[in-house]
Amino acid sequence: MSSNIGAHVKCTVFGESHGQAIGCVLDGLPPGEKIDLEEINIQMKRRAPGLDSTSTTRAESDIPKILSGVLNGRTTGAPLAALIENNDQKSKDYDELSRLMRPGHADYTGHVRYKGYNDVRGGGHFSGRLTAPLVFAGGVCRQILRRRGVYIGGHILEINGERDSDFDPVRVEPELLERLSSQHFSLIDSSVEQAMRQKVESAKKQGDSVGGIVEAAAVGIPAGLGSPMFGGVENRLAPLIFGIPAVKGVEFGAGFGFASLRGSEANDPFDFDDKGNVVTISNNNGGILGGITTGMPLIVRAVIKPTPSIARPQHTIDIKNKCKAKLQVRGRHDPCIVPRALPVVEAVIALGLLDLMNDNLKGFD
Amino acid sequence: MSSNIGAHVKCTVFGESHGQAIGCVLDGLPPGEKIDLEEINIQMKRRAPGLDSTSTTRAESDIPKILSGVLNGRTTGAPLAALIENNDQKSKDYDELSRLMRPGHADYTGHVRYKGYNDVRGGGHFSGRLTAPLVFAGGVCRQILRRRGVYIGGHILEINGERDSDFDPVRVEPELLERLSSQHFSLIDSSVEQAMRQKVESAKKQGDSVGGIVEAAAVGIPAGLGSPMFGGVENRLAPLIFGIPAVKGVEFGAGFGFASLRGSEANDPFDFDDKGNVVTISNNNGGILGGITTGMPLIVRAVIKPTPSIARPQHTIDIKNKCKAKLQVRGRHDPCIVPRALPVVEAVIALGLLDLMNDNLKGFD
Amino acid sequence: MSSNIGAHVKCTVFGESHGQAIGCVLDGLPPGEKIDLEEINIQMKRRAPGLDSTSTTRAESDIPKILSGVLNGRTTGAPLAALIENNDQKSKDYDELSRLMRPGHADYTGHVRYKGYNDVRGGGHFSGRLTAPLVFAGGVCRQILRRRGVYIGGHILEINGERDSDFDPVRVEPELLERLSSQHFSLIDSSVEQAMRQKVESAKKQGDSVGGIVEAAAVGIPAGLGSPMFGGVENRLAPLIFGIPAVKGVEFGAGFGFASLRGSEANDPFDFDDKGNVVTISNNNGGILGGITTGMPLIVRAVIKPTPSIARPQHTIDIKNKCKAKLQVRGRHDPCIVPRALPVVEAVIALGLLDLMNDNLKGFD
Amino acid sequence: MSSNIGAHVKCTVFGESHGQAIGCVLDGLPPGEKIDLEEINIQMKRRAPGLDSTSTTRAESDIPKILSGVLNGRTTGAPLAALIENNDQKSKDYDELSRLMRPGHADYTGHVRYKGYNDVRGGGHFSGRLTAPLVFAGGVCRQILRRRGVYIGGHILEINGERDSDFDPVRVEPELLERLSSQHFSLIDSSVEQAMRQKVESAKKQGDSVGGIVEAAAVGIPAGLGSPMFGGVENRLAPLIFGIPAVKGVEFGAGFGFASLRGSEANDPFDFDDKGNVVTISNNNGGILGGITTGMPLIVRAVIKPTPSIARPQHTIDIKNKCKAKLQVRGRHDPCIVPRALPVVEAVIALGLLDLMNDNLKGFD
Repeated sequence: MSSNIGAHVKCTVFGESHGQAIGCVLDGLPPGEKIDLEEINIQMKRRAPGLDSTSTTRAESDIPKILSGVLNGRTTGAPLAALIENNDQKSKDYDELSRLMRPGHADYTGHVRYKGYNDVRGGGHFSGRLTAPLVFAGGVCRQILRRRGVYIGGHILEINGERDSDFDPVRVEPELLERLSSQHFSLIDSSVEQAMRQKVESAKKQGDSVGGIVEAAAVGIPAGLGSPMFGGVENRLAPLIFGIPAVKGVEFGAGFGFASLRGSEANDPFDFDDKGNVVTISNNNGGILGGITTGMPLIVRAVIKPTPSIARPQHTIDIKNKCKAKLQVRGRHDPCIVPRALPVVEAVIALGLLDLMNDNLKGFD
Repeated sequence: MSSNIGAHVKCTVFGESHGQAIGCVLDGLPPGEKIDLEEINIQMKRRAPGLDSTSTTRAESDIPKILSGVLNGRTTGAPLAALIENNDQKSKDYDELSRLMRPGHADYTGHVRYKGYNDVRGGGHFSGRLTAPLVFAGGVCRQILRRRGVYIGGHILEINGERDSDFDPVRVEPELLERLSSQHFSLIDSSVEQAMRQKVESAKKQGDSVGGIVEAAAVGIPAGLGSPMFGGVENRLAPLIFGIPAVKGVEFGAGFGFASLRGSEANDPFDFDDKGNVVTISNNNGGILGGITTGMPLIVRAVIKPTPSIARPQHTIDIKNKCKAKLQVRGRHDPCIVPRALPVVEAVIALGLLDLMNDNLKGFD
Repeated sequence: MSSNIGAHVKCTVFGESHGQAIGCVLDGLPPGEKIDLEEINIQMKRRAPGLDSTSTTRAESDIPKILSGVLNGRTTGAPLAALIENNDQKSKDYDELSRLMRPGHADYTGHVRYKGYNDVRGGGHFSGRLTAPLVFAGGVCRQILRRRGVYIGGHILEINGERDSDFDPVRVEPELLERLSSQHFSLIDSSVEQAMRQKVESAKKQGDSVGGIVEAAAVGIPAGLGSPMFGGVENRLAPLIFGIPAVKGVEFGAGFGFASLRGSEANDPFDFDDKGNVVTISNNNGGILGGITTGMPLIVRAVIKPTPSIARPQHTIDIKNKCKAKLQVRGRHDPCIVPRALPVVEAVIALGLLDLMNDNLKGFD
Repeated sequence: MSSNIGAHVKCTVFGESHGQAIGCVLDGLPPGEKIDLEEINIQMKRRAPGLDSTSTTRAESDIPKILSGVLNGRTTGAPLAALIENNDQKSKDYDELSRLMRPGHADYTGHVRYKGYNDVRGGGHFSGRLTAPLVFAGGVCRQILRRRGVYIGGHILEINGERDSDFDPVRVEPELLERLSSQHFSLIDSSVEQAMRQKVESAKKQGDSVGGIVEAAAVGIPAGLGSPMFGGVENRLAPLIFGIPAVKGVEFGAGFGFASLRGSEANDPFDFDDKGNVVTISNNNGGILGGITTGMPLIVRAVIKPTPSIARPQHTIDIKNKCKAKLQVRGRHDPCIVPRALPVVEAVIALGLLDLMNDNLKGFD
């Protein structure tokens, strides 16, 4: 339930930020699929810290080591287990960490849930570091999907009020997704980069952090994936995306924008394209109707809350001494986690789509 | 997967809009719980059509009949099955329905998914009518939760731009939730009702429809419910809420509003209240940190898209004759589904919370 | 978990023996499949009581009523719900039933599990009557499987020491399975019928009951179904078969007979048949190696314990008055449940095989 | 499905016999539990090869390395991942292995299932070596269970016709289980050891192998664990036990012996013991009625087929050259796997019982 997700292609994630290692087990992959580790490492690097001033300077090699499920560069069909060792941990402030509950973090809830036995160092199992195995798993799924014509990519839609262009929901080219998903600070309109970076820098200088929104798309998905009620594409992707720390909202297509639309504006009229394929003229529904794909681009957005670890002094409690306390979070922290969260969102979408494609028995025989 | 959800308290939903009956099976309920059917019927009526001009005039008695799992008014522990018969179906336009794909509906995706064998009458299994069993199931769970001090309620936050007050996320009284969850057009500030209704009326006159947002809260939840990664409260509630037709976005706490906040504003400082309980001074995280409850009010919002069935002529395709077509949806349809969607959102939250409370073994012995 | 089983084709069972109704919901069926209700009723009658002197005289029409998931005689792909009403209940001895724990029954364990709130009338949710919906569900799956060349049938292998011939595990003809699965007292060698019936009669006269073994086979299963470890055919069928009340052991192929074999005898040598298909010369493994089908006949046996409800006086306890007691079970009870258990075993095998066939994406596109 | 099992306490197993490593992830463990690795290693050694002449001489250190979920010797509540590296692999005969299908092994079915991409070296993911992580996982669960008064142990009931005494099903002392579960060649009556070993030696000399039966018991289980239908103790333990390679049958209590009993013999009369606890005078049902524990000893037996790898020449097929072939399995193989299978059976019972104890919320707060 907690560390395991998926109906056919299942992903189990384990590890604690400052433990021996983190990793994942992917079960249910089709056999005989080539796995290109270099390409996966491009994704790993997009998520890794230290790339630029928006992120922490903790150095992590984060090269996943495959333990099983791959032979001669191809999947065997057996569970694919991968390991990432933890090398650069610094766990000096253990006592303070276990006493002073960091606002916005899982310190307090983890303490209650696990009766004080949870590993608090670096956030333990709640750490954003646990998204590294997810990016690995998504990287594997992505390659399998691409071979079946499905492309996934995303961009930073917003950082603290500065906004990139939206995807054109009826026309998302695979090339755009491939470009976006190979960059670190992915934008459709690169002219907004400077303004976004300034917002991050400004917050950083004040010992503060900023949040934002990422937008991802997937194209090449056949119509008819997903099921009604609780088996829909939204139902299957949402718990994956909410599995990424800091995500507090998920929307598909026009999302919360539907609240100000009328039906005549919101409905996506059906039509045939030149080749006789069924298309919709607009795509407010983000490629999903009744939980099932229409064949139009899948559009999803997730909001990423500002990094809770900030240098500014904060009011909190001392859980051991049962008293109020002042907290100043030390150490290396990202003033903005949005660029690093983006490849994770793309990764879990890949995971979810590959799982869904196994549901309806398409493209796998 | 599709019709079944839950880890411990499981809900299976079945039925098609114009079939014999719809219903649900609830498994994993604690034994010996009193079930007050009259109270459940209050919820059924909040969801039922025909209450006022925002909704269709289809008359449905919708009195659920309990088939098993309840003896002498108390749960036996065995699966609780309930049935709602379909009486007032009108399925005249069957041929047109199966040819002309209604924009914004699941007609086309259902056709692809089920190879044309799906029951298209009244939307079949994709119909909003399938939410009636969910309201029943939620009504059962709600009573069990209330006995353990958990209260759930919600209100119409927005209809087509007209907006109610938000919940005060640090202070949500059970009394407010009880009032809201007993009304049909639930509002915190009743002065906005008229403006909302005018929006609905205006759309209706023009053969159109409007969307909106519902906001729900739950209080009395102990801290420590939920699990990290994919087992969090958000991960468990989101697929339930996305199981409601027309929901296209779900957010918790400040939700998409986090995008414009700084960490220093977004973080919720911890404190002790008068009785020594741990509280947060603000509650931007909506009562959830790291997927686990803090004990503060749970705040969740869902966007409801405008009813896709509108009287205005629409462009679409004829799937049998493979040609473009004009469609004019006839019959009784809600110009605004938001008030009726609200009790369903509350219901699935009840279902999800009762399921979650069984995870961590609290309050059930 | 409790009332729900299956990974792709899911079956949810509900009901209590003397409640309003019993039934099931089958989700994940392929769409467009013809459902022949008359053929299903043949299976229902094989399970139904009152056919001959081995069974109780309780009259049950047990005609299942389909509520959803079937339109114009074909599956729609939506959950197929079916209902069987309880008509002929006689619940006179309620007080005694809830006090005196019947040996061999679930009265005591159900009382502890459900804190005394379980419906004890007729055994409630633990009743053998709950197998009627299973036979219905299996009847549906059987027809879908037969269309893909898979045939299932079984026979009474043993009743109280009297033994039928075994299946020839390398040569099981579909015709034999069709004959066996249309009979009530199914035997390969009908000459043992009289001896078996005498054992039943003799026990009945003495107010006693007898147990036995059923053996079932399935042919036409493609090689390659199932998965290693916990996803094997044995792993998936065993929990289904143990879901039938009175089953206390399950074995595949040579089963417990392997204990006295040597490897050179037990191993099934591979060969090619005339058409170049891979076969095994013997079939001690019952068509399963490493959890995965070989393409040879699937052979499974289940032991059925003697009906615990016997007329002879028994020693037991009074759970309310906390004292020892004498119990004499009254009412109509089968002296031998084996013939009626057989169609249930066949049914759950059908359910399990259809579910497994969806795993590996064979025969469903 | 395949590599993952459990409802609350979940176990994911990965690895291939001659790959980098094998291991497991255990999720849902209660936090704060002391983990004694030395005690676990006693179990690992009982399963490890090379202990005596019944087993292969492959040397394996098999010391599991804990990667996460344990801090300062106690569970943190996060997933516990453990790794066992593969050191002593010898994979010389790769070409022959991938061509010649070993009778009784998963070579052929794995080839079909995974389209020839499965790792055939040492049996790959189908290898008995994959039971090492299961023994580790069971070792962890065992310690947690013992702290709650539950003891598990087993013995070799039969090897090729030579039979140990049965457990006395109404009186199984924790001390006996502790003794049995600390030995390698566990027997209740040690006088049968010599005869059993002679059977093994005799087969070995002839290049052959023998099978057998293991019997396990668990005591201290509270009454009321498990659920009806598919959620019973038998339904939950059987798929775990069938997950052990070579197991072809599982029975509870009198098991297949019920076939020759009458109801009056089979029923276990209820009584009160000296302390007023409910007991049964006999225990043919092996501590389970209606799928739910009675509080009496749980008794389960599993049959282990003879090791399929034998030195004697065997008839088989060459899957690449599509022709008949002779096979002579080389390398180190156990003439009798029964003693090494026993600790695995005990381990998965521990896993299953801990999972079940989480169902009904007993003993965990």
